[in-house]
Amino acid sequence: MKFLKMINSPEDLKKLKISHLKALAEEIRSYIIEVVSKNGGHLAPNLGVVELTLALHYVFNSPKDKIIWDVGHQCYTHKIITGRRDQFPTLRKYNGLAGFPKRSESPHDILDTGHSSTSISAALGLVTALRMKGEEGKVIAVIGDGSITAGLAFEGLNNAGYRKEDLIVILNDNEMCISPSVGALSSFVSKRLTGNLARFIKREIEKMAHKFPGGESVISLLKKGEDIFKMAITPGALFTALNFEYIGPVDGHDLETLIEILENIKRMKGPILFHVITKKGKGYPYAEKDPEIFHGVGPFEIKTGKILKSDEAPSYTEVFGKTILRLAEMEPKIVAITAAMRLGTGLKAFSEKYPDRFFDVGICEQHAVTFATGLALGGYIPICAIYSTFLQRAYDQIIHDVALNNVKVIFAIDRGGLVGEDGPTHHGSFDLSYLRLIPNLTIMAPKDENELQHMLYSALKYPGPVAIRYPRSAGEGVELDWEFKEIPLGKAELIKDGKDLTIIAIGNLVYQALKAAEDLEKENISIAVINARFIKPLDEDLILDFAKKTGKIITIEENTLIGGFGSAVCELLADRNIPVKIKRIGLPDKFIEHGDLKTLKRKYGLTSETLKKIALELLNT
Amino acid sequence: MKFLKMINSPEDLKKLKISHLKALAEEIRSYIIEVVSKNGGHLAPNLGVVELTLALHYVFNSPKDKIIWDVGHQCYTHKIITGRRDQFPTLRKYNGLAGFPKRSESPHDILDTGHSSTSISAALGLVTALRMKGEEGKVIAVIGDGSITAGLAFEGLNNAGYRKEDLIVILNDNEMCISPSVGALSSFVSKRLTGNLARFIKREIEKMAHKFPGGESVISLLKKGEDIFKMAITPGALFTALNFEYIGPVDGHDLETLIEILENIKRMKGPILFHVITKKGKGYPYAEKDPEIFHGVGPFEIKTGKILKSDEAPSYTEVFGKTILRLAEMEPKIVAITAAMRLGTGLKAFSEKYPDRFFDVGICEQHAVTFATGLALGGYIPICAIYSTFLQRAYDQIIHDVALNNVKVIFAIDRGGLVGEDGPTHHGSFDLSYLRLIPNLTIMAPKDENELQHMLYSALKYPGPVAIRYPRSAGEGVELDWEFKEIPLGKAELIKDGKDLTIIAIGNLVYQALKAAEDLEKENISIAVINARFIKPLDEDLILDFAKKTGKIITIEENTLIGGFGSAVCELLADRNIPVKIKRIGLPDKFIEHGDLKTLKRKYGLTSETLKKIALELLNT
Repeated sequence: MKFLKMINSPEDLKKLKISHLKALAEEIRSYIIEVVSKNGGHLAPNLGVVELTLALHYVFNSPKDKIIWDVGHQCYTHKIITGRRDQFPTLRKYNGLAGFPKRSESPHDILDTGHSSTSISAALGLVTALRMKGEEGKVIAVIGDGSITAGLAFEGLNNAGYRKEDLIVILNDNEMCISPSVGALSSFVSKRLTGNLARFIKREIEKMAHKFPGGESVISLLKKGEDIFKMAITPGALFTALNFEYIGPVDGHDLETLIEILENIKRMKGPILFHVITKKGKGYPYAEKDPEIFHGVGPFEIKTGKILKSDEAPSYTEVFGKTILRLAEMEPKIVAITAAMRLGTGLKAFSEKYPDRFFDVGICEQHAVTFATGLALGGYIPICAIYSTFLQRAYDQIIHDVALNNVKVIFAIDRGGLVGEDGPTHHGSFDLSYLRLIPNLTIMAPKDENELQHMLYSALKYPGPVAIRYPRSAGEGVELDWEFKEIPLGKAELIKDGKDLTIIAIGNLVYQALKAAEDLEKENISIAVINARFIKPLDEDLILDFAKKTGKIITIEENTLIGGFGSAVCELLADRNIPVKIKRIGLPDKFIEHGDLKTLKRKYGLTSETLKKIALELLNT
Repeated sequence: MKFLKMINSPEDLKKLKISHLKALAEEIRSYIIEVVSKNGGHLAPNLGVVELTLALHYVFNSPKDKIIWDVGHQCYTHKIITGRRDQFPTLRKYNGLAGFPKRSESPHDILDTGHSSTSISAALGLVTALRMKGEEGKVIAVIGDGSITAGLAFEGLNNAGYRKEDLIVILNDNEMCISPSVGALSSFVSKRLTGNLARFIKREIEKMAHKFPGGESVISLLKKGEDIFKMAITPGALFTALNFEYIGPVDGHDLETLIEILENIKRMKGPILFHVITKKGKGYPYAEKDPEIFHGVGPFEIKTGKILKSDEAPSYTEVFGKTILRLAEMEPKIVAITAAMRLGTGLKAFSEKYPDRFFDVGICEQHAVTFATGLALGGYIPICAIYSTFLQRAYDQIIHDVALNNVKVIFAIDRGGLVGEDGPTHHGSFDLSYLRLIPNLTIMAPKDENELQHMLYSALKYPGPVAIRYPRSAGEGVELDWEFKEIPLGKAELIKDGKDLTIIAIGNLVYQALKAAEDLEKENISIAVINARFIKPLDEDLILDFAKKTGKIITIEENTLIGGFGSAVCELLADRNIPVKIKRIGLPDKFIEHGDLKTLKRKYGLTSETLKKIALELLNT
């Protein structure tokens, strides 16, 4: 750490020679690998942008110049060299550094992020503000080739090209977002489109040339120089078409070139797109070889690249992946859709076994859902596997396309509830509430991985769209039934009878509820436990029976307390005028910080201990 | 109606000669003008696509071939010639024909729509399904130049180009969506980009040509043929770059050409983009002259083009427009953003008085909100004026960009609650619920237009983001205070004291509540009326006081009953363990049909009559 120990702010960077910067880059790489191997994190994206980050901070003056990291999962080098080197070992730990940019950590972090494709729009707003105020300062959005395919990024580019502010967009092109990038634009950014556009232009020029005397020489010229022609015309044409000055592509690991070009760009006006080619996982062979696995990764052994698996039960994600394989065999109308999360959603095996029935649409949640609507209109049963927090991006499409048309789309919502180390932008804290208000939608959450498979099976039988929400974590370790069982629509499960108080739990909190009830049983307190299963439709009969019978209810959910499952129970009790004492447990009305799941669950009372405490309080009032 | 009376289905169309089709087009135009002049509706978009619709149905075989109308506000000709001619006079009336495609009306309506930019994604899903099932049938998405700039449309195009299904996209280019189109793509579609891209390609070819023997002749060729060159290269390049076969542009009112080209397209494979130039309002001079006003219009006098205004009070929209002008004068940091709804949101005067502080980003709600975040980070106070239902499109941006970063963006949410004739896709039925769960967000709804101005003023004083939601309708006719008043954050207003029961109303339903209370007063029933003002934070003290005092509460809101204002009150009462009888009035858990506001409000009980009835029921239990 010869050089790194000298870097306490970006200013210190500027004192180094470029040869020293290269050595610094290697030191930072080692440091990132070391910390991520222990804490987990977004390894491959960060290793890809070490040089780019150094070059940006070498040329520009942060925070006067403002660097906005799209998604933000590539900000580790940025954090290390903006005064957070010594805290870096706390990365992603509770009370430690966040894995994403965070304004409260540093003035060098301009925007809290975690979702993709917001950088261009935010940067355009910021640079417009600076210009209007007459303040100096460049604004730079750094965005990946995956993120730039999202509709929001396109809206930003389109508006930026129209507004002509002095915006710098750096396209960090690693030809791979999380899953390999898809879509025509992505192929544009890489090689294929080059050919297409060049062919088109060549054809048009040929057509035209025939009309002119001497035009034949143009054609022969085109034939001779076809490759150079391709290089000259593309890949900037699309960006140029959107009024951007296109520069690149250049090797994103070549510090000299990066710095030289960025120095030029610093003096330019208007919207600029600088196209940089980087390698995900650069410098760590295992990550270079499998950037999909090393995109976001848990602890691993540096020497072997072996992921350190705990002895946990199969995750909900894995069980989903296996179940959908079995269901697809039984039901040929099933197709699966993911938005650049093939691995994360557990769809890899499906994509390999049923390539024709698998659709990875790239980071395009909106399109994923409306495309699913079209497939459903055509008689297929699309299973749309999207993380809870990213599904927010497709909210209008769920309402206006799926629910209004009342088509059979099944949403497999992974990462529902707390996700742990990725923090506020990745927790699925809101889904039960924002989905519950959508007409025609059935919403379920399984108590364990066995129930997940039955719910997926049952969803095929229910009319209309269905959402199944499950957590990121390992399963409960229960045995998986071989036979699928149909869960009657809207029927909750009485787990344990009782007469003093009823706990109604949704999702795997059912087990916490059961534990609390069993513990209290020893104190001669009789607690009923209901596995709600359905957020919508509620099992009104069972809930009302137990409300009347026990007079006291606790609801518990891993979701915001506003408008969620507990609120549904309150609404029901109010509507039926059943006077009960009810206490709701769930997430408070704030963005939940990052940290390990155990700490967060304890902090927010999603435990049997809290249930016991609250039960005793309720019983004593 | 010589020809029109013969057309009972698209099959009948095919019996006509093209010259007869032309006469039919004129008959349809007259019919549309006649009905819309009485019922109101989307006049200009529909007059623009009469020939295009006839040509599509002449060439293709609906419903085996499937035509998906983007937004759907241009479907009148389609409805008239697909068996709904005689019902057309019921357009937009309660129980009458919907103003948008509706699957329950006809098998020719493929997708229920109302929001923009969904057609390409849905069509891609549908054509994929047809291909997988081995069914015949073309799928055609008809999309405007405004709608195609939205991120969702781009995601669809990008994925369609990648997947290479036999998708036909018709770009209905009238160089004007609702407000004039903006954005670099839009200029691409029109003239400006033509020049840009051509210049770029010319420059690159020149560079290249210098490297070759005989290259000079290329350059001179380019100079000679510059215009032809431009024509040849553009405007299809962008679509070609996305792997679409580009055809056009052609005159969208020239039936012969349309039919000839569509016949060719019918036989082609792969993704095709057919670029058609139409004139909004075509054939009705007043609409041609002012397509912004005649986009969606109320009843008007055909002869003069005069909009028939009722003697209603100024609308909330107008008061918003005036207030923001006054506030902008007081507070130079205020800027205003709209997503292609300059007129509809009341921002026209602002845009004229403060062109530098006004941003119309096109049909890009996502970008509008994230762009606002950037402006706020730069120290401005963006007022983002978006209709309630369209704000769903930016849900993730409100959560992840505005609320997480806790920046001062003010959402002016017009069209909250029922909107009437535009129906289920346009009612703002969900906003109180989907916004309420967002941390850091303050949410208000004014009881009248006077309170609206005070709320806008007050929002400037509150910390963090604020949403103000108000209805589409005319105001309550109250006087507007000249002095702005700051409403204390989270403070409700006691409108009328009472001891038997409390009605807590949000928005202009306060007046219905007051009327009910006054009526019941005559029967010696004492009803308290609270104007809640805030959905979040709730005025907990006042609500709890009256809950305890009266023991009986009715809440009323123009919003879904799931998770909305009434639920917030239920949550509060449950959390504080206050045993009251509570009855919530609001919209049921379904998509609300179209119809006049009065009918809908009566049907769904948003009236003083319902309040009285429910109050008496509650008091008698």
